Amino acid sequence: MTLDVCLNQLMRELEMLATFSDDPAPAVTRIVFSQEDRQARTWLKELCAGAGLSIREDAVGNTFARWEGSAPELPAVASGSHIDAIPHSGRYDGTVGVLGALEAIRALQRAGVRPRRSIELVLFTSEEPTRFGIGCLGSRLMSGTLDPLRADDLRDSQGEGLDELLAAAGFSGPLASVALPAGHYHAFVELHIEQGPLLERAGIPLGIVTAIAAPATLRIEIEGEGGHAGAVLMPDRRDAFLAAAEVALAVESAAKATGAIDTVGTVGICGIFPGAVNSIPSIATMLADVRDIDLARRDAVLEAIRNRAGAIAAARRVTIRISTVNADRPAEASPLVVDALRSSAARQGLEYQPMVSRAYHDSLFMARIVPAGMLFIPCRAGVSHRPDEYAAPDDIERGVRVLAMALARLAE
Amino acid sequence: MTLDVCLNQLMRELEMLATFSDDPAPAVTRIVFSQEDRQARTWLKELCAGAGLSIREDAVGNTFARWEGSAPELPAVASGSHIDAIPHSGRYDGTVGVLGALEAIRALQRAGVRPRRSIELVLFTSEEPTRFGIGCLGSRLMSGTLDPLRADDLRDSQGEGLDELLAAAGFSGPLASVALPAGHYHAFVELHIEQGPLLERAGIPLGIVTAIAAPATLRIEIEGEGGHAGAVLMPDRRDAFLAAAEVALAVESAAKATGAIDTVGTVGICGIFPGAVNSIPSIATMLADVRDIDLARRDAVLEAIRNRAGAIAAARRVTIRISTVNADRPAEASPLVVDALRSSAARQGLEYQPMVSRAYHDSLFMARIVPAGMLFIPCRAGVSHRPDEYAAPDDIERGVRVLAMALARLAE
Repeated sequence: MTLDVCLNQLMRELEMLATFSDDPAPAVTRIVFSQEDRQARTWLKELCAGAGLSIREDAVGNTFARWEGSAPELPAVASGSHIDAIPHSGRYDGTVGVLGALEAIRALQRAGVRPRRSIELVLFTSEEPTRFGIGCLGSRLMSGTLDPLRADDLRDSQGEGLDELLAAAGFSGPLASVALPAGHYHAFVELHIEQGPLLERAGIPLGIVTAIAAPATLRIEIEGEGGHAGAVLMPDRRDAFLAAAEVALAVESAAKATGAIDTVGTVGICGIFPGAVNSIPSIATMLADVRDIDLARRDAVLEAIRNRAGAIAAARRVTIRISTVNADRPAEASPLVVDALRSSAARQGLEYQPMVSRAYHDSLFMARIVPAGMLFIPCRAGVSHRPDEYAAPDDIERGVRVLAMALARLAE
Repeated sequence: MTLDVCLNQLMRELEMLATFSDDPAPAVTRIVFSQEDRQARTWLKELCAGAGLSIREDAVGNTFARWEGSAPELPAVASGSHIDAIPHSGRYDGTVGVLGALEAIRALQRAGVRPRRSIELVLFTSEEPTRFGIGCLGSRLMSGTLDPLRADDLRDSQGEGLDELLAAAGFSGPLASVALPAGHYHAFVELHIEQGPLLERAGIPLGIVTAIAAPATLRIEIEGEGGHAGAVLMPDRRDAFLAAAEVALAVESAAKATGAIDTVGTVGICGIFPGAVNSIPSIATMLADVRDIDLARRDAVLEAIRNRAGAIAAARRVTIRISTVNADRPAEASPLVVDALRSSAARQGLEYQPMVSRAYHDSLFMARIVPAGMLFIPCRAGVSHRPDEYAAPDDIERGVRVLAMALARLAE
């Protein structure tokens, strides 16, 4: 089988998708259910319709574009990713897996393939946690990992409810209807940029993911006592921000203390109340993100953070409440998908290496209900979630080609 | 002279002023030139007109309500404060000095006093630094302490320029016209809540300020490197927020290290970019506020912060830029005003103590062009800049009475 990947068209589509942004180029900001996200979804559905795919949308906005196989009664093969983008990020995270899967389907169509199983492109809602503080909203609900009743209560920082935003975006139905039964799909493959430096450093064009790390998010709420910055003497203070500063440094220390290179800990958000130059902060709220490929080691880091926070709270006479936003189990890739990707790469004479994914992906949740796997391509300097995120066209082309052949094989 | 202070009316007016707020009671938020501030100014001018005072407004919105004396050609005696309120603060800071001065004038009128010098109530624009990052905007310009060209360039965090906001609020003219010549006023007195616990602790109803501390504000801008919270390994990170956390703790350490109870250091604002749970902060911006009654000691604290920040920048491979937003000299109260306040308190048999003010006040700048002083009344538990800020009616009444007698004496 000879596959023609139309790389120029795909690169133009990636460029076009990047223009649906609340930030000027090269930065991309596309928050789920924002005007930009909704416009991008409309545009994407038109592209899918142009490829003869039939569209289905579920109650949370997950979108399925189906290329009917010759045996439509069989569980389909699925591939996809997300298009939402965190503030001031780049153009390739998620989008390569969506537009790349579409191009893989078109390439198979052009090659005259008629798959036995249907092939579905899946666009997941809100992989990024930006708006609701929880990542992989669509795939969590799809896999039954997130209680629909809990999802019903989600609100963004402006107080807008998920239910209102869904209604405004034209999605309806109970969130309980989003879950798919085990066996619904035959396999799921996600193409993605690595978001790390290993492939580029090794000079290898493809990574086949064997396991996805286990991320956890803690919400850390600190309450001290406010007051006038000029008038309250230093010994009398219970400054919430200084306690937050110590906790943030404790997150770093705890992640480093494992001695394992795969442990990472980050505080990416810290809000201060009341937030005035001459007012002692009375409240600080942070989100801490801790990841590891080893669940026990990651949970030990969370415990170390809690312990250290307890000591900080006592020393500074503040209250620190730590709640778990999510603490997911790691996932193993399915041998079925790994084998399909391996043989696809081998048949095209492309080198690959087995890899662990340390970023969050919808595949982490899809792996709970369907044999799942991921294909990584290099990104420059390992940079992601930044405007200078970059994947070379040749690497994208190789990824799409291997994805297409793997989908064809899985759909046989 | 017997003075009748109409305390019930004054308390009702303080209550009414607190309703011009962008925050529900008991919290008060009244940012300069906001709708609430503009409505409060209109209401206040009506009160002044009701007392027969004539109104003048300058180009930056400083408002002067004049009770003409029998010798209007002589320099007037002035008293006043501010009505802008930082987010989520209380009802007494500044407002007691404005409405209290108005009631002092009305009490003198009721007592049949006809002052020789005119007495002017002054409402200063933007004593709080909330909107423009610099406090005492009105009194800085009035005293010639702030270059009008620099003020022309001021913008708030939303990018709105001072010039646009002034025009929208109906103020016009060059900012250079705000400065008053030395000798314009004969004396200036500001009535204010203490914003500290000393009077309450000592059980003394009045504080006569002899010196105002020297505040300094540093803008601290930290630039590191962003990236995906899952993908960038700990040793590769240049996290701007962790550097900010260390600098904030260094501000605290440096303030404590002087060993002097009058040194205070505060970080009340910290912004993080891009601000996503799964994104390493690439930029952090903080404002640090350092105060002391001893200028050399305060400047040594600033120097210690800069030195420590340099070491943090090197260790974390980030860039830290520290700029001075303002670094003001302390001010001495004028013997003319201190004597007037002392004799006024003594004539009413009220105990007082000499005090140092550690909070910012417009008096700090007025003292550069006019013999100035301040009168403090107790506030509960020393609390200020919080919704539970409280001054007892009896303490307010004593403050207004002593202020009125001092104004009458200074205007003789």
